[in-house]
Amino acid sequence: MARKIEIFDSTLRDGAQARGISYSLHDRLQMLALLDSLGVDYIEAGNPASNPKERQFFEEAATLPLRATLVAFGSTRRKDTEAPQDAGLAALLGAGTKAVAIFGKAWDLHATNVLCTTLEENLAMIRDTIRYLKAQGREVIFDAEHFFDGYAANPGYALLVLRAADEAGADTVVLCDTNGGTMPHALEAAVKAALGAVKCKLGIHTHNDSELAVANSLLAVNAGACHVQGTLLGYGERCGNARLTSVIAGLQLKMGYECIGENLARLYDIAREAAEITNLTFDETLPYVGRSAFAHKGGMHIDGLCKAHGSFEHIEPSLVGNQREYLLSEVAGKAAMAEKLKDSFPEAAQDREKVGLLMEKLKALENEGYSFEGAEGSFRLFVMKQLGLRKQKFSLVHFKVSDEPTNENTFGAYAVVKVDVDGEARMAAAEGNGPVNALDKALREALGNFYPQLRSVSLTDYKVRVLDTNAATAAKVRVVIESTDGKDFWRTVGVSTDVIAASLHALIDSIDHSLLGAEPISASAEAK
Amino acid sequence: MARKIEIFDSTLRDGAQARGISYSLHDRLQMLALLDSLGVDYIEAGNPASNPKERQFFEEAATLPLRATLVAFGSTRRKDTEAPQDAGLAALLGAGTKAVAIFGKAWDLHATNVLCTTLEENLAMIRDTIRYLKAQGREVIFDAEHFFDGYAANPGYALLVLRAADEAGADTVVLCDTNGGTMPHALEAAVKAALGAVKCKLGIHTHNDSELAVANSLLAVNAGACHVQGTLLGYGERCGNARLTSVIAGLQLKMGYECIGENLARLYDIAREAAEITNLTFDETLPYVGRSAFAHKGGMHIDGLCKAHGSFEHIEPSLVGNQREYLLSEVAGKAAMAEKLKDSFPEAAQDREKVGLLMEKLKALENEGYSFEGAEGSFRLFVMKQLGLRKQKFSLVHFKVSDEPTNENTFGAYAVVKVDVDGEARMAAAEGNGPVNALDKALREALGNFYPQLRSVSLTDYKVRVLDTNAATAAKVRVVIESTDGKDFWRTVGVSTDVIAASLHALIDSIDHSLLGAEPISASAEAK
Repeated sequence: MARKIEIFDSTLRDGAQARGISYSLHDRLQMLALLDSLGVDYIEAGNPASNPKERQFFEEAATLPLRATLVAFGSTRRKDTEAPQDAGLAALLGAGTKAVAIFGKAWDLHATNVLCTTLEENLAMIRDTIRYLKAQGREVIFDAEHFFDGYAANPGYALLVLRAADEAGADTVVLCDTNGGTMPHALEAAVKAALGAVKCKLGIHTHNDSELAVANSLLAVNAGACHVQGTLLGYGERCGNARLTSVIAGLQLKMGYECIGENLARLYDIAREAAEITNLTFDETLPYVGRSAFAHKGGMHIDGLCKAHGSFEHIEPSLVGNQREYLLSEVAGKAAMAEKLKDSFPEAAQDREKVGLLMEKLKALENEGYSFEGAEGSFRLFVMKQLGLRKQKFSLVHFKVSDEPTNENTFGAYAVVKVDVDGEARMAAAEGNGPVNALDKALREALGNFYPQLRSVSLTDYKVRVLDTNAATAAKVRVVIESTDGKDFWRTVGVSTDVIAASLHALIDSIDHSLLGAEPISASAEAK
Repeated sequence: MARKIEIFDSTLRDGAQARGISYSLHDRLQMLALLDSLGVDYIEAGNPASNPKERQFFEEAATLPLRATLVAFGSTRRKDTEAPQDAGLAALLGAGTKAVAIFGKAWDLHATNVLCTTLEENLAMIRDTIRYLKAQGREVIFDAEHFFDGYAANPGYALLVLRAADEAGADTVVLCDTNGGTMPHALEAAVKAALGAVKCKLGIHTHNDSELAVANSLLAVNAGACHVQGTLLGYGERCGNARLTSVIAGLQLKMGYECIGENLARLYDIAREAAEITNLTFDETLPYVGRSAFAHKGGMHIDGLCKAHGSFEHIEPSLVGNQREYLLSEVAGKAAMAEKLKDSFPEAAQDREKVGLLMEKLKALENEGYSFEGAEGSFRLFVMKQLGLRKQKFSLVHFKVSDEPTNENTFGAYAVVKVDVDGEARMAAAEGNGPVNALDKALREALGNFYPQLRSVSLTDYKVRVLDTNAATAAKVRVVIESTDGKDFWRTVGVSTDVIAASLHALIDSIDHSLLGAEPISASAEAK
């Protein structure tokens, strides 16, 4: 059987150090569930000492049925204190996780010039902290910060740090290339020296400042490490951390190790959902999970591929849930469309002419900025409309939104809508936290007279992305809305240069989707 | 003296295989001059047999005073023909370059299943082609396509291919990881075997499908290769080629080789110009040349850096023309605040009390959802306001925006604003592509009467981020706006549950920032 390598994801902790990332509580809980569904072994989710908001997160996370081990992160005790009196350690234990990760200095320069303490006290801080946390029943992962720089500067001391952690009872000692500057050969030699120094499990944690994070992770495992830390999409401070999508695929498909088993085939989808939660643009040239990763443009390559798939591809794309694409050919697009229709519209999927027509309409919408990736609700409505299967449940006769200050510190946004259902008109008005919220409330108010089930529908997510940043405030925006009726979730999309119009399109699709199969009652009957 | 490693750039040839890249003739000539100014040794600029337009490019390129060696690319002669009668080789020679790069098959599967010829004829194609090109006085670089896959499948034959090229007179034999799937250890072993097989120079050409292109290039040089092929920014088919910015910096700064000498300090600027020519968004997390490459967000990292620069940076940023940056966030501390104030507010930076006060106010704003990361303009205004240095240039007395459909397919957004400058009021109204665009136009219209310089200010970017997705359309949004007056750029931020209010805050900050130091003229004077 393949040797197991532990995967430790830090998207929620080290990943949050990246420029432009700022997770809400809801984002973090969503990401936690997503990472857990991928089958990683550890999820490092935050530093309880850094921020009072962390406590709420760990309380909510404790109620989730996770398969992975949840990890809270912190540092060793402060210098010249006792571990049981250390406020940071108290916060760390207060998170209530089964495992904790703590970092300590493995570079003598850091102990003397950053911590401003002695080399001996630095070792004592590490030893005391680990013994204390072990005595409290925690699994302890020790991050030897700057291990590789430390090993280059003072190898004897760097190894002493690892030994101190090992002897104090750490379950895993992790070698960190904190500055990301270590070259592959230097890294391999240092990993081998570390293996000789400790008896516990050895891990690797790399950064991408020299564009070597993935390579260094793979080389460390090849040298004997059995635990890899990184972030799913490589998010992290500066140039980021080791990208786990590439690490996992490399370890499992190329080097014969076991990481997440069959879940590997979900890598493509899960990577996209993670980017959605973070609201960062997905880099489509990413290895394994990018849309371009198996996209072929060169004529000779395409010809070669048609003769023998392995000839211009390093792996079969479906192994990571991706698919082959020929950029100059329409054939691939139609095949993908047929694939997409298969489940909900099996007849149309078989019909070459209908598939071709849908492709054409889809391309026209994509040229306008639409993207149905991650908006399955709108995609379904689009297909139904094109196939003549969509029955109109209501029409929006008119609307108006206004926004102006009401007094010194608040804005007054309100919306008026008029809808028509089977010839019966109804108006409604609502105030909101902003014009889109007002519009949402007014629409539900008006339509709730005909479709009372709409009253149990609510929006769970609202995302705005600017498509053409050159055009500044005149740019197109894409709005994606997620809705739920308590049982199911669906996402819908709208595109316009006007953020209100884009939101309205997505709102209408959302309502339409929740009314699939519904029949209206008379508004006047309901009113009685 | 440091050993010289030849740098071979293929941005214009292999780079053009990337999705979304399509160079005009003008783009190509600009890129050629740019790459030449960086000091690379070879510039591979196109395949003369692929397209009749190539001839014009090579004719114009021949008139440029290049320092680098210009290279035209092609394949070996076709099977069962004579080299002098081969149309592709005639086109290649027709380009008139001093050096040519040709590729041939080093994987037996490709010779038999893609070329559909014999292993012996494949060797003859390589030998004949190289002899013929050498007889025509060309420097010949032979790309052994799929060498690493070929070496894994049939090592004896793969080495026979290299020997055939060497014996026929190739100046350089290049080992290609065409599919990008080779693991570092396998690559090193194969490079060593190749070194034993040929007497000529050995090169490396890698692709990034396993996120190992840079690492594999560095490892190949470490094993003995002296010529590296790649593309400046990593552009290339699928996941791209080895990114030369990272390769060159790694070789020169970390491994002690010589590549482009002092031009390394221009890497940051040249990388950006290359992205501009290609018209692709620059990835700011790129190693060495990304704006985030030396941007620090973690409080402990920033504290460490202030004590010792080397402590959290793998190189001095100026070596590649980049610079250090401290991102302000809830995790950053007073040290970061003082560092950030140093240039524009040196006195306040020294004042511990003022720094503490600013940190406190900043945290309060951040709790509301503000983030000054990437919004230096608003940060400056915030500091000025807190320090009592901000003079109000105008006040917004009232505004109103409305949005409603005007006919079946368009929306009519308009805004009315009333501003006051030194007791003189002015109203203006404008239509727009959406309510924010309308507001922007109305504000500039009204204030342009007092500050005519506002008419040369324009917005260049507009970003919306939803902060608390739980609340869906009632969630807070953060709007970041980038503005320019043609010389400088500045970014401002606004936060509100109302997207219009958030945009308005950012717009007002943008206008305020452009008016720092400006004095109003009387609106009635301007009107005359």
